[in-house]
Amino acid sequence: MKVNGTQYRTIWPETNSPEIINIIDQRQLPFAFVIEQLTTVSQVVDAIRDMHVRGAGLIGATAGFGMHIAACCAPDNRFMEHMQNAAKALGESRPTARNLKWAIERVMKEVSTQTSVSDKRRAAFSTACAIADEDAEFCKKIGEHGRKLIEEISRRKNGQPVNILTHCNAGWLAFVDYGSATAPIYGARDAGIPLHVWVDETRPWNQGAKLTAWELQQEGIDNTLITDNAGGHLMQIGMVDLVIVGTDRTTRTGDVANKIGTYLKALAARDNNIPFYVALPSSTFDWNLDNGQEIPIEIRSGGEITEVTGTDASGSLQTVTLAAPGTRAANYSFDITPARLVTGLITERGITAATPAAIAQLFPEYT
Amino acid sequence: MKVNGTQYRTIWPETNSPEIINIIDQRQLPFAFVIEQLTTVSQVVDAIRDMHVRGAGLIGATAGFGMHIAACCAPDNRFMEHMQNAAKALGESRPTARNLKWAIERVMKEVSTQTSVSDKRRAAFSTACAIADEDAEFCKKIGEHGRKLIEEISRRKNGQPVNILTHCNAGWLAFVDYGSATAPIYGARDAGIPLHVWVDETRPWNQGAKLTAWELQQEGIDNTLITDNAGGHLMQIGMVDLVIVGTDRTTRTGDVANKIGTYLKALAARDNNIPFYVALPSSTFDWNLDNGQEIPIEIRSGGEITEVTGTDASGSLQTVTLAAPGTRAANYSFDITPARLVTGLITERGITAATPAAIAQLFPEYT
Repeated sequence: MKVNGTQYRTIWPETNSPEIINIIDQRQLPFAFVIEQLTTVSQVVDAIRDMHVRGAGLIGATAGFGMHIAACCAPDNRFMEHMQNAAKALGESRPTARNLKWAIERVMKEVSTQTSVSDKRRAAFSTACAIADEDAEFCKKIGEHGRKLIEEISRRKNGQPVNILTHCNAGWLAFVDYGSATAPIYGARDAGIPLHVWVDETRPWNQGAKLTAWELQQEGIDNTLITDNAGGHLMQIGMVDLVIVGTDRTTRTGDVANKIGTYLKALAARDNNIPFYVALPSSTFDWNLDNGQEIPIEIRSGGEITEVTGTDASGSLQTVTLAAPGTRAANYSFDITPARLVTGLITERGITAATPAAIAQLFPEYT
Repeated sequence: MKVNGTQYRTIWPETNSPEIINIIDQRQLPFAFVIEQLTTVSQVVDAIRDMHVRGAGLIGATAGFGMHIAACCAPDNRFMEHMQNAAKALGESRPTARNLKWAIERVMKEVSTQTSVSDKRRAAFSTACAIADEDAEFCKKIGEHGRKLIEEISRRKNGQPVNILTHCNAGWLAFVDYGSATAPIYGARDAGIPLHVWVDETRPWNQGAKLTAWELQQEGIDNTLITDNAGGHLMQIGMVDLVIVGTDRTTRTGDVANKIGTYLKALAARDNNIPFYVALPSSTFDWNLDNGQEIPIEIRSGGEITEVTGTDASGSLQTVTLAAPGTRAANYSFDITPARLVTGLITERGITAATPAAIAQLFPEYT
């Protein structure tokens, strides 16, 4: 998608030096657009854990390229041992994200099928590139399927702008391109459908305020930032037509792990008869889990709640503390929205009910 | 309650100079404890509108003392005209708060029954003092009634700490003393019941982070700050035994206007079979309203969302902007929790179901 009018993906190998991987340092958005270069596995681990990159698809793509970097660095005589160490380190960088382990396993599998180290290296790189390309392609397809939901509401509203609420950033910044929750929005915009997005600020990391509002602005999509507290009220007064969110992991039964607070929006959508959709590429499904409560929920530092970073009057970045010294904070990062509250899942293969049978019908090879 | 070990109310007339009203400038908490003196009606209007003071009971008490200040300043020959102007200006300072209009009307009524201007002035002062005293007394009674709920849960948990979640600040800082939602907590603490409070940070104004966490800390009550997004997850995993919130206005049918986001917590409590109580003195009831959707919802500046004030590394207050320039924000300040989601109302007369009949039974003289 576009940044100041120029087309970008969120991650790409350096032209002519594919051992260098470029990412956008998302901690600095929207204040500065900084491209960071990763060349070691520990840099990749740090980038994922400390959220230079974040979001389901992008965590997966970054882990894939991390395995490629590992393959570049690994000595010939202990290649697989190094790859396994990298897989372990990358795999532990974030606990909730499904795409992370999925991407690592996919690269490992392709590497294992090759015999020579040079072929293994080539397989790591081509698989990492394939993961990234497929992520972009799947998101584009999610956009095509999801767009129809927005079109239908637009018809019912006689072309009045469709109000879509989203939580966190499941935008192109969370994937390689297009995004999951935003793909239907970009698709609808391309089809000329008038729409407006309510952007949950998404405490504590403020992905909505810092990333989603910014990326929608860059793409010229009408949007309004709100507190995470406001969505229920907006639904009560008829200002929300549709909720679309992303997910970090979804069970084969349709339970959805997503950014903390998603569950509250799903409850409000149900209470007000508003459709609540979850957009995801199939790489986000955890085919081994029957119950969302089994998904590990990351607990991050309480400092992410008590400290906020932004620009001061002079435009410099400043971090301020907004609670009294000694205030204890607990930072649960995800919650589980049970399948019963999900109207449907928007995948690259189409829209499905959030039930084991419907999911299995769309993805028979995994179940 | 206590600040650094010294007992305070949130508002009090200056000893020997009752035309001067002292308040705590709550915008500066928890960073500085600043007492501000109000001597003109326009200062009182600013203090309410710009949230030097806030919270149901304290807005009422401040409006009451504002009417007393008006009476002090009003010239003898146009006394009632001045009082009516003051009533209008004070009455428009915040739209959702019920106690505001209730206090103004109560002072006006008492003033009107007197004939001489000096008696009117005396009536204004004594009524304002009575409003403040009564607010403190009613909150204390709310604490006695509400404490029993906590005691009962404590018994069921065999003395394990009772986990109480609260939203915004309905603490002593929101009233004259004790608070509404916090009064049962202080009552239970005094009765030796082990408890722990989950404090919603309460975006965008951060009343939870800045006021509730601080006041509980000052009183030595175990508490943990969380994002507004986290409560649903905590309820799902069994970490919340009871929700108690305050209210800015409650209809005679039991619909509750409270700080934006309250409705989402009520939905989550219902979904997880957790009792959801609203604590209020009778002054917060709007006896004329049948439907919460008729309560005007204040919309404040979007800047309260995009800008955050805290202390920087050197301890100085700084305001930072956390969204991109040009980000539009909408700041809905309250929402309505329908009576069907409210387990009960904790009032100075006891605990009642949130139904018209039960409320009328407890307060027959108003209905």
